[in-house]
Amino acid sequence: MKPIKAGLLGIGTVGAGTFNVLQRNQDDIRRRAGRGIEIAMVAARNVERAARIVGGQCRVVADPFKVVDDPEIDIVVELIGGYELPYELVMRAIANGKHVVTANKALLALHGNEIFAAAQEKGVMVAFEAAVAGGVPIIKALREGLTANRIESVAGIINGTTNFILSEMREKGLDFATVLKQAQELGYAEADPTFDIEGVDAAHKLTIMSAIAFGIPVQFDKAYVEGISKLQAVDIRYAEQLGYRIKLLGIARRATVDGVEGIELRVHPTLIPAARLIANVEGAMNAVLVQADAVGSTLYYGKGAGAEPTASAVIADLVDVTRLATVDPYCRVPHLAFQPGEMVDLPILPMAEITSSYYLRVYVNDQLGVMADLTRILADAGISIDAVLQKEPGGQARTDIIIITHQTREKNVDAAIAKIEQLETVVGTVTRIRLESLS
Amino acid sequence: MKPIKAGLLGIGTVGAGTFNVLQRNQDDIRRRAGRGIEIAMVAARNVERAARIVGGQCRVVADPFKVVDDPEIDIVVELIGGYELPYELVMRAIANGKHVVTANKALLALHGNEIFAAAQEKGVMVAFEAAVAGGVPIIKALREGLTANRIESVAGIINGTTNFILSEMREKGLDFATVLKQAQELGYAEADPTFDIEGVDAAHKLTIMSAIAFGIPVQFDKAYVEGISKLQAVDIRYAEQLGYRIKLLGIARRATVDGVEGIELRVHPTLIPAARLIANVEGAMNAVLVQADAVGSTLYYGKGAGAEPTASAVIADLVDVTRLATVDPYCRVPHLAFQPGEMVDLPILPMAEITSSYYLRVYVNDQLGVMADLTRILADAGISIDAVLQKEPGGQARTDIIIITHQTREKNVDAAIAKIEQLETVVGTVTRIRLESLS
Repeated sequence: MKPIKAGLLGIGTVGAGTFNVLQRNQDDIRRRAGRGIEIAMVAARNVERAARIVGGQCRVVADPFKVVDDPEIDIVVELIGGYELPYELVMRAIANGKHVVTANKALLALHGNEIFAAAQEKGVMVAFEAAVAGGVPIIKALREGLTANRIESVAGIINGTTNFILSEMREKGLDFATVLKQAQELGYAEADPTFDIEGVDAAHKLTIMSAIAFGIPVQFDKAYVEGISKLQAVDIRYAEQLGYRIKLLGIARRATVDGVEGIELRVHPTLIPAARLIANVEGAMNAVLVQADAVGSTLYYGKGAGAEPTASAVIADLVDVTRLATVDPYCRVPHLAFQPGEMVDLPILPMAEITSSYYLRVYVNDQLGVMADLTRILADAGISIDAVLQKEPGGQARTDIIIITHQTREKNVDAAIAKIEQLETVVGTVTRIRLESLS
Repeated sequence: MKPIKAGLLGIGTVGAGTFNVLQRNQDDIRRRAGRGIEIAMVAARNVERAARIVGGQCRVVADPFKVVDDPEIDIVVELIGGYELPYELVMRAIANGKHVVTANKALLALHGNEIFAAAQEKGVMVAFEAAVAGGVPIIKALREGLTANRIESVAGIINGTTNFILSEMREKGLDFATVLKQAQELGYAEADPTFDIEGVDAAHKLTIMSAIAFGIPVQFDKAYVEGISKLQAVDIRYAEQLGYRIKLLGIARRATVDGVEGIELRVHPTLIPAARLIANVEGAMNAVLVQADAVGSTLYYGKGAGAEPTASAVIADLVDVTRLATVDPYCRVPHLAFQPGEMVDLPILPMAEITSSYYLRVYVNDQLGVMADLTRILADAGISIDAVLQKEPGGQARTDIIIITHQTREKNVDAAIAKIEQLETVVGTVTRIRLESLS
């Protein structure tokens, strides 16, 4: 059987990794796929650089539309990044009847619904294992491995940059700005790190997972997104003293509020009990914890970024597409796990309605009676206390009081914090970090 | 589209779990699979008990061959266990042109090559996600998620009973016999626990994973199998003092010995650095660590046994078979990851030729010069020492010396141990436990 022909759009880090792994392991890949996979064409802005990477093995063009329109190309591999040009290219590839493999989480989180609908109509596949957690086959696990289950929640460390920063902050006791600078020097953070550190990248990935887990459309605009740039070293220390680690988690979870079923969809720093496996995922590694009714908890761990880990996922998709390219679309795995027409429209819950436990740090003048005020305000809001850590002032007049609450509705905590901040004994604002036991 | 019809052979723990999860989540499963999955027939020794479980939802028969021969049945789900009857049933189901889903690791580890060849010839699928690590989709990950990679090694905690026993021994400082008894009372160990505690069950699962990872035939008879029944509490304590945990690992790894490529295939108690994620997998949980050239390390964690976790894997297979039942066999994923005709026959290495680090405990009369003897014997055998722990005799005349070696060939260690045991200062035999850094 002749090799299937793929065209690469972009040959940066992931593109070059994909090209190299396909070359190096071509024999193993062919023996698995039953057919060779050939990169027949590459589009790159810098044609000379691209030509050096592929070393005369395939055509190199500057215009990506030439790849998308080429009748020889069976699969278009989109590795450009960003929303606009990739959107045009992917939609045109689909219109041309080509299958698409992409690592572009932003594209899918924003335009996934249209893209998958167009692909469905044309009978082509859009595969995107590389869009979430790099080389970890989490899309396959959620979409095919757990088909027996009603999935209850997905909670993931899905951004390596922020996990690296949080690990360094904890291990070395450094503050956010210092570690970010080091991470940039080491190449773990980009020159403009906003998308990573503000949680946007994690929210893109979470949005994609939520659609597959629950059979809902992608709706990035409804995700709550809070990054780690305001996280203070002192809270990481207190959390540790209380037996917790702070991780940037993406959480998607079924919840029923006042009798109405909905989905929590949120990215934010989160305290996790240090004994949990996922709390011990350090450095730039990724991990996703899935809770489902039949299987219970499963966890998937590995490198979430980098040339070859991401290439691993891109090529796994290429093999899947190669196998299923000629079959009736009905026999393929649906893009978002559920058959088109079988999606549901569960509402994404507003943050005020989510349920969580909370870590609250209140900076107070060391006055008698403040504890009584705090506990009264919390009790009035219907919030019960799990643990309190009161720091000795150590000669200073002011001190931190840390309170861990039991589970409660976020709006109750909002209301309690507003009241606490009005107390005369309280200095400045209350620091609030959500806490998940993940049990 | 009419539901696909499955027949269950056996409705014990896993069979009942499969029936119940299929009933409970039938709507979600149909929305994913695009077609209902119906248990149309059940074979069980105790027909009355089976009839109570299925509550009149399907036919119940005593003779499993009635299911296998029934023209209405599309998929036979083999959940009987053991080798002989299931072998006959599975081969007859295949001969009848039926797809097979099985959770039977023993059957596949021993007869997999014949079964897969027969299925290939008949153009039917034999799916077996549930045979390894229960609900964790590790077969899918190895076979489909990592197709881009040259897999270097697989190392797994793949027997929940032994992991539960080892966790309890470490946490409570108890000896093996005491914990085994408790495990039996709690239902974590069977009345006859031999297959679990002697490593046979883990070796079955490892054998299956090795075939998929490396594209070799299943060859259980060549696996090295050592259980945990001789493991002493004192070694768990010493290991902990040195920063290690002891786990029963199944290890399959590529290795080159004297220029010849082969596969290490071995199950035995193993020291692992306590900082590794897999070292922190406690209780009856399973985890598999895969090292591969492109993706690096990935880890898959979850419940390895139990009614519903195993049912989760059985049903995932049913969905896969339902999707692909009507397609050209060439478009399906090959049973052992590589296309038939593309398997290789790498030799399984004899244990003497494996490479590992070692934990050695030598019980000695507390005499001057014994350390010098030990280090001389190891140096003569070309074994270098990584760490030594010498226990204070605490008033007793005798003491333990613990030595951690660097990596070496097992036969060198065998030779050194034989010499050490001949020393007059050494009491009894040397305790030897393999050590893997898994870095």
